[in-house]
Amino acid sequence: MTWAATILTLYPEMFPGPLGHSLAGRALGEGIWSIDPVQIRDFATDKHRSVDDTPAGGGAGMVMRADVLGRAIDDVLARRPDAPLLAMTPRGEPLTQNLVRGLAEGPGVSILCGRFEGFDERLFEARPILPVSIGDYVLSGGEMGALTLLDACIRLLPGVMGAPLSGEEESFEGGLLEYPHYTRPLEWEGRRIPEVLRSGDHAKIAAWRKARAIEDTRLRRPDLIERHGDVRRRSPSGAQHEEES
Amino acid sequence: MTWAATILTLYPEMFPGPLGHSLAGRALGEGIWSIDPVQIRDFATDKHRSVDDTPAGGGAGMVMRADVLGRAIDDVLARRPDAPLLAMTPRGEPLTQNLVRGLAEGPGVSILCGRFEGFDERLFEARPILPVSIGDYVLSGGEMGALTLLDACIRLLPGVMGAPLSGEEESFEGGLLEYPHYTRPLEWEGRRIPEVLRSGDHAKIAAWRKARAIEDTRLRRPDLIERHGDVRRRSPSGAQHEEES
Repeated sequence: MTWAATILTLYPEMFPGPLGHSLAGRALGEGIWSIDPVQIRDFATDKHRSVDDTPAGGGAGMVMRADVLGRAIDDVLARRPDAPLLAMTPRGEPLTQNLVRGLAEGPGVSILCGRFEGFDERLFEARPILPVSIGDYVLSGGEMGALTLLDACIRLLPGVMGAPLSGEEESFEGGLLEYPHYTRPLEWEGRRIPEVLRSGDHAKIAAWRKARAIEDTRLRRPDLIERHGDVRRRSPSGAQHEEES
Repeated sequence: MTWAATILTLYPEMFPGPLGHSLAGRALGEGIWSIDPVQIRDFATDKHRSVDDTPAGGGAGMVMRADVLGRAIDDVLARRPDAPLLAMTPRGEPLTQNLVRGLAEGPGVSILCGRFEGFDERLFEARPILPVSIGDYVLSGGEMGALTLLDACIRLLPGVMGAPLSGEEESFEGGLLEYPHYTRPLEWEGRRIPEVLRSGDHAKIAAWRKARAIEDTRLRRPDLIERHGDVRRRSPSGAQHEEES
């Protein structure tokens, strides 16, 4: 079954964009996933095809209209009733690897991409939309957030990365940053690969990696440890493998 | 002066990608910013142009080599000595609007994009690299993170969005989510725009927006409030305007 992404956007030409290359691009060509960018303007009814209007109460910028987006959303919900509908917004739930995993295990996703100041809030009251944020920074629109979310999901689809990763091997699963990596050459600019990694002692290597993961997380991201509880009680098998993001 | 982005990547064809459209695309055409994607493989020395090797100590995947990347980094540092050098990695410092603003105010940025399991850690000890993460999820590589970071920076460059936004009007500045937006039609599916927003009383509107921003942040993102302290002591002028991300 093809994992199907439907994107409501004012810039359908941005898709698949970077997802047309590398692993995601190959998987797209193989039909492992599909993408259907839908132009929101097609649901406008006036001759200017307007999708936005000035904010009630005043202020800068424009707000995306509930009536136009409501029609676009209803069209997507009718065509893809089984896929969860997300909206990319800084007011949304922070994207996590757990949410990514849940989406990747489903039939696909529909994503509403905002531009301007945002969406008319009544949309979130009237339709089953999950607002999602990829981080605490401001982007020019929801499109980059949608591409990022899709990239995170696609790599988890069966057949994309080769052997599927176990839950234990996934990043952030144990609430820890990944341990540091090393590879040949053994010595580079006078810096050597840590001796323990060349010992061949798998238990010692696992223990070192676990200790480094905890140490680096405490130093760099104490918030992850607070959120996930005491990592010292977790088993060393929780040591993580992850790709750069 | 053109704000210059240099990207070290195995997939230069991913750039400018979505940044070639909309506001960022127009600004690229006008020379407000520029992008120079550099193929990391060009710094390999063997006939297979290899850039990675198996992880020291064992484990899945491949690690990007310190010697090859060191040469690529030195080339970029020599050509762009004034631009900060970032590496996209989930082990990095979380991207914030503050970091974005600092980068946008500088001469540009150089970004190292990883693939596979990550970078040889010695690179971070031997070169002035700031590791940055766009969020707590795993991507197929650093390219989507780089595009996201660039999008956040580019919209802040003078001339891209029209009138530059004041610091007070920027998202997350006051540690709050943005208040909800509304626009015409006044009534949609029986739901009306909140009465206060149609009162014309600017002080009352500002107070309502501030209260909603605090309420929604407490409900959805208590972590933001913990991080930024007691928001009730902030002035109502801290109410935010932001775009969807």
